[in-house]
Amino acid sequence: MIEFIDIIGTLVFAISGALTAIYKKLDLFGVYCIAFVTALGGGTLRDILIGNAPVGWMLDLKYIGIIFIGFLLSILFNKYLEKLRISLFLFDTIGFGVFTLIGIEKGIEYQLHPVICVVLGTLTATFGGVIRDILCNEIPVLFRKEIYATLCILGGILFFILQELNVNQDVLYLATSSFIISIRMIAFKFNWSLPTGNAFLKKG
Amino acid sequence: MIEFIDIIGTLVFAISGALTAIYKKLDLFGVYCIAFVTALGGGTLRDILIGNAPVGWMLDLKYIGIIFIGFLLSILFNKYLEKLRISLFLFDTIGFGVFTLIGIEKGIEYQLHPVICVVLGTLTATFGGVIRDILCNEIPVLFRKEIYATLCILGGILFFILQELNVNQDVLYLATSSFIISIRMIAFKFNWSLPTGNAFLKKG
Amino acid sequence: MIEFIDIIGTLVFAISGALTAIYKKLDLFGVYCIAFVTALGGGTLRDILIGNAPVGWMLDLKYIGIIFIGFLLSILFNKYLEKLRISLFLFDTIGFGVFTLIGIEKGIEYQLHPVICVVLGTLTATFGGVIRDILCNEIPVLFRKEIYATLCILGGILFFILQELNVNQDVLYLATSSFIISIRMIAFKFNWSLPTGNAFLKKG
Repeated sequence: MIEFIDIIGTLVFAISGALTAIYKKLDLFGVYCIAFVTALGGGTLRDILIGNAPVGWMLDLKYIGIIFIGFLLSILFNKYLEKLRISLFLFDTIGFGVFTLIGIEKGIEYQLHPVICVVLGTLTATFGGVIRDILCNEIPVLFRKEIYATLCILGGILFFILQELNVNQDVLYLATSSFIISIRMIAFKFNWSLPTGNAFLKKG
Repeated sequence: MIEFIDIIGTLVFAISGALTAIYKKLDLFGVYCIAFVTALGGGTLRDILIGNAPVGWMLDLKYIGIIFIGFLLSILFNKYLEKLRISLFLFDTIGFGVFTLIGIEKGIEYQLHPVICVVLGTLTATFGGVIRDILCNEIPVLFRKEIYATLCILGGILFFILQELNVNQDVLYLATSSFIISIRMIAFKFNWSLPTGNAFLKKG
Repeated sequence: MIEFIDIIGTLVFAISGALTAIYKKLDLFGVYCIAFVTALGGGTLRDILIGNAPVGWMLDLKYIGIIFIGFLLSILFNKYLEKLRISLFLFDTIGFGVFTLIGIEKGIEYQLHPVICVVLGTLTATFGGVIRDILCNEIPVLFRKEIYATLCILGGILFFILQELNVNQDVLYLATSSFIISIRMIAFKFNWSLPTGNAFLKKG
């Protein structure tokens, strides 16, 4: 189950990266690269930081293939994908939930402290987008108006609270990812965002 | 002693990163992230390059806490911190001196050549700021007008000359960091900077 | 032979990085850093991804020296180097051919799949330029109009086809690098480039 959603998450992240690159007028190689880093950049950074080498995607060719499919779909059907934006947003959100779990699991495997595991989950889910924005020469949207990261952190905290309570693993996974996914839906609906540091600057 | 100054250095680097992010109008998560990479980015890059994994801050939660304190102070008291700019500059400079030493020590621990140790010391002290500038979408100030890096290199060279002379370790540490700190003060006072490559372009 | 061309490739990449930095009006330290990452950034990223630590240039001081020579040449003779642009282009192209081979070899040494080896070869040859462009605050030229990467990929595929055919190793190296070098010359002559993703956007 988690592997299937991992594939869906990777595919949708790749599509979102490819669409961004197409709008930035990059060439085909650039579009593939941006799709790649958006989908795998977060996990790659996590693997580098914890010393899991060679990094994950080098040992499982599946990922290069999935991203190629996302790349092709984006090139051929970008007009339709735009119309599907809401459905894509759903998949994208599922991606965030699952990638956070995968990152946390990796941290546990390396016997790191729960706080660090939550950091790794958040990194895995969000830093692909940060690297995409850096490569596209923009200040990462994650640092400006998205609340993804906050949700990943809250989801991660929930994960460890439930684990402390000895909740069954399937329930643990389902509860954490449902939490991240449903709060993000609500946040999107009501247009929530974090205050900027600047807000404090004016009052300070 | 070195641990205490390490904490001060981390805190002041975090504050300087957070203040930059606040002016860039990032949201609270963005401000925390920029504070984090400014303070720990250099050491993280050093650990990745020498293969010290998981990287340092993952094994010592203290750092995440210190940066949180720096983040809170910046959000709450940014107006006052601005007025304290000169005192902060002092701490910041101490940070450069200490981080350079920590980087050099790490290189020696990994039995790398003195030249590489100096490179690692300079990286540790200065590349947090480079990553901060990349994330904030600016050409790193380090490459344009700061002489931090030159001082870290000179301080590193001094370190190995003194070590050759079998100077006592405490004196070694004190002399190297005092050198970096005092020259930077003088440089600041007289507004020294490196010539740009461009200057040679015109004459060339 | 491959070591000699490695030196030439590193030198020419360093010069190309330094010239870019000089035009960007960076200071001398910035010029050296950009020369360094242009020449060694791709190989460094490759080493980090496969877990080859400490990364290559830390164990062989030769590279720091070669880059210093490239830095000095660029500072002192940038006017003449500009006139030599065509000869430099030749060396630069040789650099791409050789760096691709070195990256592929490294992947084989780590027993990675041929597809991943081709990715590593392409990374080694091209990502120094990507990091240079990020540091200089530009969208990487590699993603916009260069076909280097496509050639490295095609060259890498040729490498593994010839290897399957049990071709003698010297012939293998010569054929692969000649292929990359000659196609790039032809591409330059006829001004070939990849279509942008944007082209598909309009039709899509």
